[in-house]
Amino acid sequence: MSVFLKTVLVDEAIEKIQAIAPIPRTVLLPLESVSGRVLSEDIRADIDIPGFDRSVVDGYAVRSADTTGAGEAVPAMLMLTGRINMGEQASVQSSENGSCIYVPTGGEVPPEFDAVAMIEYCERIGETVLVKRSLAHGENVILCGEDFLAGETVLKSGHRIGPREMGVLAATGHSMVPVFGIPRIGIVSTGNELVPVTIVPTGSRVRDINSYLCSSYVEEAGCEPVLYGIVPDERDEFRRVVDSALTECDAVLISGGSSKDERDMTASVIAEHGEVLVHGIAIAPGKPTIIGHSGGVPVIGLPGHPASTLIVLKVIVRHLLDRMTGDQSTGPALITGKALENIPSLKGREEYVRVVVTDQGVKPLFGKSGLLNTLVGSDGLVKVPVGSEGVEEGDRVEVIPW
Amino acid sequence: MSVFLKTVLVDEAIEKIQAIAPIPRTVLLPLESVSGRVLSEDIRADIDIPGFDRSVVDGYAVRSADTTGAGEAVPAMLMLTGRINMGEQASVQSSENGSCIYVPTGGEVPPEFDAVAMIEYCERIGETVLVKRSLAHGENVILCGEDFLAGETVLKSGHRIGPREMGVLAATGHSMVPVFGIPRIGIVSTGNELVPVTIVPTGSRVRDINSYLCSSYVEEAGCEPVLYGIVPDERDEFRRVVDSALTECDAVLISGGSSKDERDMTASVIAEHGEVLVHGIAIAPGKPTIIGHSGGVPVIGLPGHPASTLIVLKVIVRHLLDRMTGDQSTGPALITGKALENIPSLKGREEYVRVVVTDQGVKPLFGKSGLLNTLVGSDGLVKVPVGSEGVEEGDRVEVIPW
Repeated sequence: MSVFLKTVLVDEAIEKIQAIAPIPRTVLLPLESVSGRVLSEDIRADIDIPGFDRSVVDGYAVRSADTTGAGEAVPAMLMLTGRINMGEQASVQSSENGSCIYVPTGGEVPPEFDAVAMIEYCERIGETVLVKRSLAHGENVILCGEDFLAGETVLKSGHRIGPREMGVLAATGHSMVPVFGIPRIGIVSTGNELVPVTIVPTGSRVRDINSYLCSSYVEEAGCEPVLYGIVPDERDEFRRVVDSALTECDAVLISGGSSKDERDMTASVIAEHGEVLVHGIAIAPGKPTIIGHSGGVPVIGLPGHPASTLIVLKVIVRHLLDRMTGDQSTGPALITGKALENIPSLKGREEYVRVVVTDQGVKPLFGKSGLLNTLVGSDGLVKVPVGSEGVEEGDRVEVIPW
Repeated sequence: MSVFLKTVLVDEAIEKIQAIAPIPRTVLLPLESVSGRVLSEDIRADIDIPGFDRSVVDGYAVRSADTTGAGEAVPAMLMLTGRINMGEQASVQSSENGSCIYVPTGGEVPPEFDAVAMIEYCERIGETVLVKRSLAHGENVILCGEDFLAGETVLKSGHRIGPREMGVLAATGHSMVPVFGIPRIGIVSTGNELVPVTIVPTGSRVRDINSYLCSSYVEEAGCEPVLYGIVPDERDEFRRVVDSALTECDAVLISGGSSKDERDMTASVIAEHGEVLVHGIAIAPGKPTIIGHSGGVPVIGLPGHPASTLIVLKVIVRHLLDRMTGDQSTGPALITGKALENIPSLKGREEYVRVVVTDQGVKPLFGKSGLLNTLVGSDGLVKVPVGSEGVEEGDRVEVIPW
């Protein structure tokens, strides 16, 4: 089939790249090792949480009715009849009206009582406790099952596990946790001009930047990068390395090939055993991007320049990686601010402009898109959609953080 | 010394916790392993980048003067005298006026030429190239050293390494990278009410949530968590475990001890061989927090409830961990939005209220601060400062994302 297709819009490219994502494997792993992983099943509570009426303060468990009308001037006088220790079941306490018992934070409030008076608002005189506030029913108590009920879904499949989710998994007894496997992403750099990082490039040679940039991006997205190093623009050798990567990985990124000849070689090698779905996207920078697959393994040809590569990774390839890791979260929040300068529109291309965010607003960094210094010197990207008139000074814009 | 100090303000607690942070070690690691690590030295460019005048497009290198006045109707007619291949030095090209040579993206622009005409705006007829646009000096060329000059600082110490930084490290020849060591953070859970996650708690027992919540938080902050498990509230055993953690780790978090007796035990054990600096912070939730050290190792007593623990980790302990990892970045961007309801102020405490962020605005989740469900159900926290009148419906608020 022909490998020279017409340029597609960003949304179409995203649809196509999502459609070729392999379905992730699932694994069952010990709780202590799943921070940062993605849940592959909904998680349910195995028990009511808490499993008992629980005090949220240090104080005296009371019947709220016994404190009606109490205040600084006219405290309720209650008889102290015992204390609850942490983790101790509160079964054999006094149940007389006008009595109270000491309960620590997290301790069980016996069924005879329905509120806890904070110790700060009480005064103990011998076995008498003066309560200087009127308490409502349920005050300072978390009722049995109030947090989660047994059987309730507490976390959803596709959710990335952070500290809060770890807490909920522990609370609901998940010592083993079902998560998606980590996809292996092969990274191949092409280009006769490339030299390894250890070499000082001479003439018009440059160091291989994209292997490391892609590797770090893939890792941040929750995948395992597999580096295949620099492959010269020689078809047989290139074919051999790509074939190894296709066998050993779940997807392959071919980075470099910035010139038309190199891109065409990438496309034709994909087409040889597979299919090229996209060859050119209406995005700036990043137009010369290739999306294809070979034997069910996605193969993506990235533009040669590091800045273009990173933008294509963020805007397009991220959707492939998220499908492969199972991550359904929405990504980092956008920063909003006022544009400090006009950003003209590039007709027919969705443009991503690097910006600096200050207290004053959002300042576009113009100049040559091929520079690394504006990449590290910027805080994120502003998108100028296809068909938009561009951004005018003073417009409110959304910044996609790096 | 006395371990019962008066409650301090959040800013004072942060100052004290930063002051006891041990100075991080530095290590030199291979480039491919440093994604996510923190630079321990400023990084300089070893060479000019690019090392030659570099074309950013596929096209024809020209003398811009030869294209003055050119357009669709009256193209400049240039003589094609050769082509540059990728990585090939452009030394022996024709230098006649009115000539041009083909250059791929990333190829060297020979010194005789000063601009590159994009192939899209040219037409080749045999050995003649029609250039249909007038070009400015330097157009579509990144000049030698324009990105970085040899010797220039390209990245700062204290910077966390992401994809962009990996690219810059590769470009500047850093196959070995100086980074800070990863601090080991011991995590001890106390409380007679605690049972392991594998057990179904009976009576007023609860599962150990904080070990896993703290562990995940510490990992997210770039540290290595070391779990010491559940220690009963028995002074000798507690002392023994804390001593091991002090020997084996760079800092120790003692989580749990939600009741006053347990907190007092934590404080007195720290005081026995070290010093308690803070015992109680004017923060809600999270007041019963202890900051101390023993033999130069920071020891932090966290409140017992998971929600309070996480807020104290984010607001206070993060400053300790950032000092220990060397991370000087500013953290995730705040989300701003309009408050959809009043948030009353708690006099004398800096309060952190869980909120949900929607297109409509920021909605506070009130109710009991001890719940896990509002922790996983919220998007972040809104801070209500000490001494503030609270937030009024319609006020613009900043949300700290989880």
